[in-house]
Formats: sequence, C-alpha cells, structure tokens
Amino acid sequence: MTVTDPRIRSAVQALPGSRIREVANAAMGRSDVLAFWFGESDEVTPQPIRDAAAQSLAAGETFYSHNLGLASLREALAGYLASLHPAVSPARLAVTSSGVSALMLAMQLLVDAGDEVLAVTPVWPNLTAQPAVLGGVVKRLPLTVEPGTGRWTLDLQRTLDAVTPHTRVLLLNAPNNPTGWTLSRAEQQTLLDHCRRTGTWIVADEVYERLYYAPSASGCAPSFLDIAEPQDRVIVAHSFSKSFLMTGWRLGWLVLPEGLADQAAKLIEFSSSCAPVFVQRAGEAALQLAQGFVPALQAQMQQRRDQLVGGLQAIPGIRVAVPDGGMYAFFAVEGQPDSLAFAKQLVRDHGLGLAPGVAFGPEGEGWLRWCFASREAARLDAGLLRLRQALGR
Amino acid sequence: MTVTDPRIRSAVQALPGSRIREVANAAMGRSDVLAFWFGESDEVTPQPIRDAAAQSLAAGETFYSHNLGLASLREALAGYLASLHPAVSPARLAVTSSGVSALMLAMQLLVDAGDEVLAVTPVWPNLTAQPAVLGGVVKRLPLTVEPGTGRWTLDLQRTLDAVTPHTRVLLLNAPNNPTGWTLSRAEQQTLLDHCRRTGTWIVADEVYERLYYAPSASGCAPSFLDIAEPQDRVIVAHSFSKSFLMTGWRLGWLVLPEGLADQAAKLIEFSSSCAPVFVQRAGEAALQLAQGFVPALQAQMQQRRDQLVGGLQAIPGIRVAVPDGGMYAFFAVEGQPDSLAFAKQLVRDHGLGLAPGVAFGPEGEGWLRWCFASREAARLDAGLLRLRQALGR
Repeated sequence: MTVTDPRIRSAVQALPGSRIREVANAAMGRSDVLAFWFGESDEVTPQPIRDAAAQSLAAGETFYSHNLGLASLREALAGYLASLHPAVSPARLAVTSSGVSALMLAMQLLVDAGDEVLAVTPVWPNLTAQPAVLGGVVKRLPLTVEPGTGRWTLDLQRTLDAVTPHTRVLLLNAPNNPTGWTLSRAEQQTLLDHCRRTGTWIVADEVYERLYYAPSASGCAPSFLDIAEPQDRVIVAHSFSKSFLMTGWRLGWLVLPEGLADQAAKLIEFSSSCAPVFVQRAGEAALQLAQGFVPALQAQMQQRRDQLVGGLQAIPGIRVAVPDGGMYAFFAVEGQPDSLAFAKQLVRDHGLGLAPGVAFGPEGEGWLRWCFASREAARLDAGLLRLRQALGR
Repeated sequence: MTVTDPRIRSAVQALPGSRIREVANAAMGRSDVLAFWFGESDEVTPQPIRDAAAQSLAAGETFYSHNLGLASLREALAGYLASLHPAVSPARLAVTSSGVSALMLAMQLLVDAGDEVLAVTPVWPNLTAQPAVLGGVVKRLPLTVEPGTGRWTLDLQRTLDAVTPHTRVLLLNAPNNPTGWTLSRAEQQTLLDHCRRTGTWIVADEVYERLYYAPSASGCAPSFLDIAEPQDRVIVAHSFSKSFLMTGWRLGWLVLPEGLADQAAKLIEFSSSCAPVFVQRAGEAALQLAQGFVPALQAQMQQRRDQLVGGLQAIPGIRVAVPDGGMYAFFAVEGQPDSLAFAKQLVRDHGLGLAPGVAFGPEGEGWLRWCFASREAARLDAGLLRLRQALGR
C-alpha cells in the first residue's frame, strides 16, 4: 500500500496507516452505521468536568503553564494514585498532552536509533510505531491464544527468554487493547525482577487499569506501581481518556522514576510545551469526581461487557473470551481469515462498524475488535443483530 | 550543569534546560517582579475565542477529532492563508497541538539519526533541540551583528556555502526569535533556488509573520509560501499563539508540500492524535476575528516596540536595533558579557525579569531579550526605569 516517496524518511513511510480508519472511510458520509471501531465511549464528558474548563476560560487562564503541569494537578494526581497504589511523590509526575504523548515522551527519553524495543502483541499500533519514529528496532512478542476459549495469555518463559541485556525497553499494555489480556501480580514481579537483571526499561501503558472487572481490593488492575521502587527502570503512562470519558481532551500523565522529571520537562517543552491550563483544570475536576464516578463507570462497562460477550458467544462459529480488563471484545469468526476485508464488508453491507484485528498487528489477523463502551445497552444489541444477519446465523 | 545519568539517552541529557526558566526560578514566589522573559503577551485571549470553546464544550464536543483537524478549520485556515499568500489547498494543511508540535512533526517526517540539520542562529532553543531528539546532527549558522547598530543580518553567501547536498534540512525562523531579524523576499528566493539544487528541505518557522512592522502590502512578513511551488521541499510551521493571543491553547498548523498530509497524519496519531475539538472551535473563532483583530494587535505591538526600543536606545552603553518583526527587543549591555549572571542579578536585585541571550545559543551571549507584548505601556516604562537604576545610568 505504501507509495515510496524519496523525499521523506523511509521509517515514517513504513509505518502502517490506521486500518481502523481504512474501514471507517469505507462508510464515509453514512449515518446508518453503528460504529464500535474506535476506542472511545459514545458518552459526553461529565458536566462538572466541562464546567471546570469553562470556568477556567472565563477566568482568563489562557497562558503557558509549567512544562510538567500545574502543581495543584500534580498534587491531585499523587493523591489519586495513592488511593490505588503505594504513594508516589508529585516530583515523579509529569502532566502530558494525552496518554499517547506520554508514551512518545517515554520513548524519546529512552530509545536511540538502533535500540531494541520488545513489545507484547497484538497491541494498539501507536505503541509499536513510536519507537520506530525514533529509529528503534521493534521486536514483537505475540501472546498465545488458547484454542478452545479464545483467551489470550502471556507465555512468561518465552518472554523472559526474549528480554536480554540488548533489550532497551519492554513495552507492555495491560489491560491490553485489543485483547483484554491482563498481567497478574506474579507475572509483573517476575518480569520486573528479570528486567532489573538485564537493565531493561519497562514502559507500561496502564490506561485501562480502572476498567478492570476481576475481583480486586482497589478496583484496579495489577500495576507496576504496586511493586516498583522509585529507582527502578519503570515508566507508567496514564490517561484521563478512558476512566473519565475524556478522550477528546488530550490529557494524560507519566509516572517516572525518581530524578527524571527534569529530563521529561525538557522533552515536553520541545513536544507541546504544556497542556492548556483550562484542560488541566478539567483534569482536577475529574479527579475530584473519581471516587464515585469511576466505580460507577466500571460497573456500567462490566454490564456492557457481559452483554456483548454473552451475545457473541451465543453466535455459532464465534470464539471470544470474557476479557478481565479494557473496553473491547476481541473475537474470531470461523471462515473469515481476512479481518480487513471482513470489517469492510460488515460496514458496507450491514452498517456494522468494527475494527479489524490486523490493525493491531499480524497476530490479530482473523480477529475483530468491538468497543463495548456504549451508553445505551440497546445499541450493542442492535449491533449483535446486524452481525447475526451478516453471518446468517 | 548536566549530571550524567546512564539510564537515559545522552542525546536527551545533552539538551540544555531552559536558561530562561533558570532566571525565572531565581525569582520564585516573588510578586514584585516585572517579568518580560517569556514569549507571550500578558493579555488574555479575546472573549469571542474563549466563548467558542465554552460553547463547544456545552454542546458536548468532547470526542476524538480527525488527526489532521476539523475539515471546517482546515478550510478556514486555507481561507486565512489565501488572504496573505497564494492559495494553498486544505489538503496540504495539518492542524497541530501547538506550533512547537508542528515543528516536531516536521522533524519526525524528515530527520533520521545522523542527518545534518543547519539552523540559522541565535534562535528559539526548541528549534535546535527537536532534531537532536531524533538523533540529528545540528549545525549552527550564526547571523552577523552590525557593530554600530546592533542589527542582526544574514550573511547570504556564507549560508549558501553551508547548505550542501549533505544538508537534510535548513531550519529558519524569520521573523526571528530573539533578534527580530527577517528574511527579505530576495533572500528567500535565493535560498529556495539553492535548496532546490541541493535537495535540502526548508523548514520555516513563520509564527511571527503577522507581527511585522516594515511596510508591506499584506501586513505580513515575506513568507516561503509566497514563492514555493506545491512540490517544493518546503514546510511552513504556524501557530495561533502570537497573532491571536492564544499561547496557552496549544494550537498550530503545518503547511506541507502536496501529497504528504497522510504521512503527517500518521505522525500526529502517534504524537497527540488530534487537537481537542473545542480548541479547534476556538481557532475557527480566531480566524473569523482575524481581519480586524490582527492588524489592531500588530499596531499595538508596533507602538510597544517603538516605546521600548526608544527607551533602551536612550540608555548609554546599550546597543539595540529596531526589529522589523517579532515581539522582542534584543540588546547588548556594555560591560555585561555574562547574560545569565546579569539576568539573574536584574531579577534578584531589581525585580526586572529578562531572558538571557545565551538561552538562544552561544551567539546570543552578552545579549538580553525583552518581550514587549505588554498590554499596558506603563509596564514597559516601569521596566525601563528598573534597568536604568540597575545600570546607574
């Protein structure tokens, strides 16, 4: 698909364009499509969060902010994190202009051209694209599918074998987009111990930690923040997008090891300089709501998950496991090996918008991702009906 | 100053921290400082622009946007640019999360590790830091100071000699921060012709084009957009920050050669994914105001420039030229060769906050930058009085 253009970097040309967008383009201009392809709820950001931004604008907060974010927001983030994990000093936090920006900053901090980055896959394509932008060499470590259940799991020994002293970064996204795979505490500890020996950085994309449905004391997925020491080579990236219905705001944060915030501040200066103050005020309002809002959102998401996965499991020829975390059902359809072609057919002929598994790497080929972050349960049922009609089952 | 940390990239550690912030830190917590150190007006964003964002939030526009920005904003930007330059198709525009982000995206598009980037200096430090983050090799081409007048000018022949087929990017910021130096149309044409021969990209940071005070038909500095063909290797970076008093909003745009928007869209996806829709709506409102607002801002800035530069020229031992563009007076003080030490002394002992010239590279050593984007003329006069007292002149 890529047309060679001698004018720009081949590393950039080689980056795949979004296959999800390719499917969405096939439905351009149609209003009859039920779209579940993007990783975003269809619910507007809560009013108090929007109000906080509007009040900040009215108060004239339209100037540059500190590279690392408002001191008050960093304090609030530290308090929020302390309600879920061992306390982290605000001095280890950097407010970023989105979760994806947080991850790019982590890559900029760590990855020289030629450095090896090992990513557990399938995964959100941005994670593997970012080190490639920096000239890093990305290796993929595929999860394994249990044949009967369709559940994706980590082969821990294979992972340990793959992480060597040549591995600059181990890139993990758990709960995982798209599979819902989640790391256990024991797996995290084993990986951390091993990476301490090899000198490998762990960069953990934990933006789905609050969308976790297995029993837990904190209502939160296992996190490297629970076990890492302040000096460990561990960076955790976070976002307001998923837990607070704030996708469009572009606000996230990094938890850094001790002593690296100043280096991150420089990179933020050179990337976007700071997040808008009125967006940061919205983030403060979100954190004030967190105690009640996030568990309610989590409960609603769990209902949607059970509804959608139950509906899918009832369709003959579909293989899908109940995901422990995230907001996606990832499923395989018998007789449909080409996920991109099938996703295009689904949207073209049946008005059902799903993401093709191949968008998340070759490991995802033959699978489809369905985002269940739907405000109305009926919308998911309508989608399920369209899928049944498409399959004639 | 840099402490070596074996954990992170040496290229990142080698990037200078902001010397401006170092001066500002020396005055932390003091309310009696007259601060002119940052490149930002002290005037709040106009009400109609803030209202547009608040209305968008009220309407629930809190979702992801297209990577390249709203179609309506790109259309409006094309219309705005057409009022100043030959028309550019919206298909060549990418909305970015700030001007600095626009420039980083341009570097990501073009600069592989080891590539040579030639920057005309002194210059805003972010411009030279960005290619270094990508592993590029940054060479500096200093402007020349006219000994008598303190005016900074380009040695065109030296520039042509320095741009060879090995030069991947020629990085230009004109009107220039900090010196106010501006490229003439003839110089732009000569540089473009030369870069066409060497295959060198021109990346032009033209964010100050509307803060231009020399006679011109369009009220706008000479731009590469006036002479470049759609296929030329020219990228122009822009921002809403300076012309619309929108520093804190983090909204900018790129003008790309034909056929590169899809590549830029991928890089935007991996950097911040999109600008918030409500921020983009504010940008649309700003462009609607542009016809009246920008010339009025330009006229006010010109008054402030004349007031400040006149005041500085009246102080014995100060060398300063009237800048044709930008929002800074850049001046040298006799007997003060160490700009960082002097700037710290000025803020500590006299409550006058200026940026040290060395923040913009070694070429700026011995100089100071004073931002004249002040709402109140009296504030500049108060600053001038403090400088006179400090100098005892």
